Amino acid sequence: MARIRIAAAQCNLVVGDLAGNAGRMLDAYAQAAAADCDLVAFPELSVTSYPPEDLLLKSAFVAEAIDTVGKLAATTGRTAAVIGMPAGAGPLVNAAVLCANGKVQGMYGKHHLPNYAVFDEQRYFVSVDEDGPLFEVNGITVGLTICEDAWNPNGPILTQAQAGADLIVNINASPYFADRIRDREVMLAARATEAQVPIVYVNLVGGQDELVFDGASMVVDPRGSIVARGLQFAEDLLITDIEIRDSDRKARSRAATGAPIERIVVSEAQPAPVPMPARIEPRMATLAEVYEALVLGTRDYVRKNGFTEVLIGLSGGIDSSLVATIAADAIGPEHVVGVLMPSRYSSDHSISDAEALAANLGIRTHTVSIESVHEAFGAALDPVWSDADHRLADENLQARIRGTLLMSLSNTYGWLVLTTGNKSEYATGYTTLYGDMAGGFAVLKDVPKTQVFAIARDVNARADAERIPANVIAKPPSAELRSDQRDEESLMPYAELDPILEGYVEDDRSVRELIEAGFPEDAVRRVAALVDRNEYKRRQAPPGVRVSPKAFGKDRRLPITNRWPG
Amino acid sequence: MARIRIAAAQCNLVVGDLAGNAGRMLDAYAQAAAADCDLVAFPELSVTSYPPEDLLLKSAFVAEAIDTVGKLAATTGRTAAVIGMPAGAGPLVNAAVLCANGKVQGMYGKHHLPNYAVFDEQRYFVSVDEDGPLFEVNGITVGLTICEDAWNPNGPILTQAQAGADLIVNINASPYFADRIRDREVMLAARATEAQVPIVYVNLVGGQDELVFDGASMVVDPRGSIVARGLQFAEDLLITDIEIRDSDRKARSRAATGAPIERIVVSEAQPAPVPMPARIEPRMATLAEVYEALVLGTRDYVRKNGFTEVLIGLSGGIDSSLVATIAADAIGPEHVVGVLMPSRYSSDHSISDAEALAANLGIRTHTVSIESVHEAFGAALDPVWSDADHRLADENLQARIRGTLLMSLSNTYGWLVLTTGNKSEYATGYTTLYGDMAGGFAVLKDVPKTQVFAIARDVNARADAERIPANVIAKPPSAELRSDQRDEESLMPYAELDPILEGYVEDDRSVRELIEAGFPEDAVRRVAALVDRNEYKRRQAPPGVRVSPKAFGKDRRLPITNRWPG
Repeated sequence: MARIRIAAAQCNLVVGDLAGNAGRMLDAYAQAAAADCDLVAFPELSVTSYPPEDLLLKSAFVAEAIDTVGKLAATTGRTAAVIGMPAGAGPLVNAAVLCANGKVQGMYGKHHLPNYAVFDEQRYFVSVDEDGPLFEVNGITVGLTICEDAWNPNGPILTQAQAGADLIVNINASPYFADRIRDREVMLAARATEAQVPIVYVNLVGGQDELVFDGASMVVDPRGSIVARGLQFAEDLLITDIEIRDSDRKARSRAATGAPIERIVVSEAQPAPVPMPARIEPRMATLAEVYEALVLGTRDYVRKNGFTEVLIGLSGGIDSSLVATIAADAIGPEHVVGVLMPSRYSSDHSISDAEALAANLGIRTHTVSIESVHEAFGAALDPVWSDADHRLADENLQARIRGTLLMSLSNTYGWLVLTTGNKSEYATGYTTLYGDMAGGFAVLKDVPKTQVFAIARDVNARADAERIPANVIAKPPSAELRSDQRDEESLMPYAELDPILEGYVEDDRSVRELIEAGFPEDAVRRVAALVDRNEYKRRQAPPGVRVSPKAFGKDRRLPITNRWPG
Repeated sequence: MARIRIAAAQCNLVVGDLAGNAGRMLDAYAQAAAADCDLVAFPELSVTSYPPEDLLLKSAFVAEAIDTVGKLAATTGRTAAVIGMPAGAGPLVNAAVLCANGKVQGMYGKHHLPNYAVFDEQRYFVSVDEDGPLFEVNGITVGLTICEDAWNPNGPILTQAQAGADLIVNINASPYFADRIRDREVMLAARATEAQVPIVYVNLVGGQDELVFDGASMVVDPRGSIVARGLQFAEDLLITDIEIRDSDRKARSRAATGAPIERIVVSEAQPAPVPMPARIEPRMATLAEVYEALVLGTRDYVRKNGFTEVLIGLSGGIDSSLVATIAADAIGPEHVVGVLMPSRYSSDHSISDAEALAANLGIRTHTVSIESVHEAFGAALDPVWSDADHRLADENLQARIRGTLLMSLSNTYGWLVLTTGNKSEYATGYTTLYGDMAGGFAVLKDVPKTQVFAIARDVNARADAERIPANVIAKPPSAELRSDQRDEESLMPYAELDPILEGYVEDDRSVRELIEAGFPEDAVRRVAALVDRNEYKRRQAPPGVRVSPKAFGKDRRLPITNRWPG
């Protein structure tokens, strides 16, 4: 039996910040070295952070990234560091390099390049077919793989194990969606048992535009059991002692059929330090997990883009109330400003509920009535409107006055506007372009209305307090753009709408398939038409946090000009 | 010597409109058959039109597309039809099928799937390695290839010719950018001479969101000469008699090294009809070509999305003047509405120039002063603005009032708002989000300001009339959002700005590379910072017509959250 101490360094890195990312990795490296680790693994493309997108088409960027890793390698000692980087002259490779004793010891190139959902890796990289090299670290043979490589049963994990790897390090930038961790656990257990090898899975953490990387790095033993798990949605250095049993080695060598793979000797075996117990962080429940994804996605979008304060239009409704709560948890209530913008159609409770929420959260507010501006617009438009029916235009006008007021404050004070629309609204276009859609970040863009309610209740339940006022949750949703307006009358009941949206948007089912599945025909046709017709609005929407398997954004690329009726 | 009559049917198809596209193809087929053609070739993915994007992830859509082609095939007679379609159960293939005598005779699968620039074909399709089949049509052996296949020297064109193809049909959906036709001609000449085979190149025509397909189908002989060329930017049925010389056949068979390829006999040789002369349409000059691309892109965005009228804010400046001219040419002046929205900062000529333009074009106008609304906003914001510097906010406010007025008219009358910003403004963020950026389609989004001037002058020169008033072209550009504002003082001279933008945006050169190339360091750093910092604005911009090799949009995918300094 041999033992190796490995740190999974789930760092929160920033796209394009080569020097900053290197500094963060150096800090984690120093901690891992101080803890007698033999190896510390950083996430996929750690030096550039993920996804660098078309920065990879800039040759100066790639050259500087490669140079940065060279400098990092020069600082390494006995503790090996596995770093993700773009590599190669000409066509790029998505690479993992193992650095130790002052230099890059060898490089592995990613085999399986995802080019679906939010991924565009074949735009940038060529796939590599070679399975090696293997690295001997402290007498243990280590194979490197990258993210998608682990999702393929006959991929390099099996080949490397059969060629003698005692341990596989799999570096990732795997974005979150609800319950994604379960998929990863099942997948890693399958790979580990097939190959009879332990796997160290390290994941990026942090928000990057639409994506949230959730961390939750883990170690799986050759029997598929999770033996260590890091924090979700926070940086962590997950240090685990992994025992390589002679019986496993023998089992692997019996199964060996693969061709030999190049071996690089990095360090000789050394006496192991005093063993330390493995750490298994508990997994969050689904609603709490989604909430934390929204908090981290919002915090990182705000901070990584250089903002300190955010601005939210508070209507007293559930969407803006939940956004304000998320913002307060993300960056602190002292950095959140609520703006109340009542109109002739605002109900009394819209003001009192917003004020109660602000008091509960401890955020400051401003109140600006839209009435006089609304009147001035009406007077200016009156000659052009003449006899035409402008009821819908007048509803949108109110939303645009509010959007303009928020942007005026944003432009004056440098506050970022958080928009409050939810996925049901973005899907059906039940939202005003340049109105309530105006802002820098759409926190709930991927959260259907029924889930907004569930999360709001869960927030209060977990706090064991009424953070979001009970009346906000209890009252029927209304845009309050005309008298006695009710969302569910204008649109349809959210409990009916959201399952149709899930089928049509997330599962790409057709109108006919949904009708055959038992959804009412008129509702399905209406929803599909609304979703398709409003693609142009979503194309101009701010980014938001992806928490579902298919979010609006680069996950779902539908033409605006499109005559397919669904 | 043998002869074959081939029609290149450059149809204007609509994404998702399976029945409509089939109808359009049937019309062209009937014309080609009536003209005694042996074969008519339609563009790449003609049944779905291009690019169908994530419609291809909907299995019901693919099934219906396949079914539609089956029905088309059933109507064919002696004249063969080459149709583009998605094919395959499970992983899809980008296919060309040859249909004749009532059925699909055989299928070719695209080898080279572009996954760069605006293309995402590896997201949807798997690449096919087989080079065949070859089709015997009227005694001539025909090979099929698709678009990108022709850009590769050792691709299927050479292989098919060496296996006995007398003629290659290459079906395309090749989007326009300035001077792109020259690249295609050079490429086709190289392929034809290498393989010693004539090539019939058929291209899609029409606008689809950001893209314009320019048609300009052509026929190249085995010596690389263009022997026929269709119209640019319009539908065309380009019928050409192609002679297959015995000497060329012998030359190809001497060069033959490839493996045999399956042959499908479609029709026996028949006596050739009376020969007809080939047609070579002249090529437009560059500025006229760009103008026509903008006209077609605008027309098709408007019409294919079901609009009949457009709305433009006329400032008397050159951008809105050119947009109005394009719109008038695209959909007729009677369908274009100009709105003048003067403020306290508007100069006298801004009104008179806009009125002169409208009179020249024959479009109707409305005038709505923003003054009273501007005052009402000022009064409402005063308590919140208090002592803060809100000069920039006040400039943006004026633009947003105008955007809101336009959208109010749009919502009332169903008119589509065309925005007027140019590429220099979108690049540097010298534009107001939800203000002058508000609208459905950004006609000049990919046209730098210096080119806006050049096109405007060219429009007048070609018309030999002052369509765009001379004063509009002569006066210094100003946003007129404060007193005596001049764009080139706020920003920098456009003649200095645009070449830096071309290097930084289109060529992906770094700040250091541009400084080394001789651009002033402070200007380069300032421009790069502006471009990077304004990614968030562009993400919320309307689509516009791509006329350059790299447009903002899906051509250029940069993160918003990005700390690389360029």
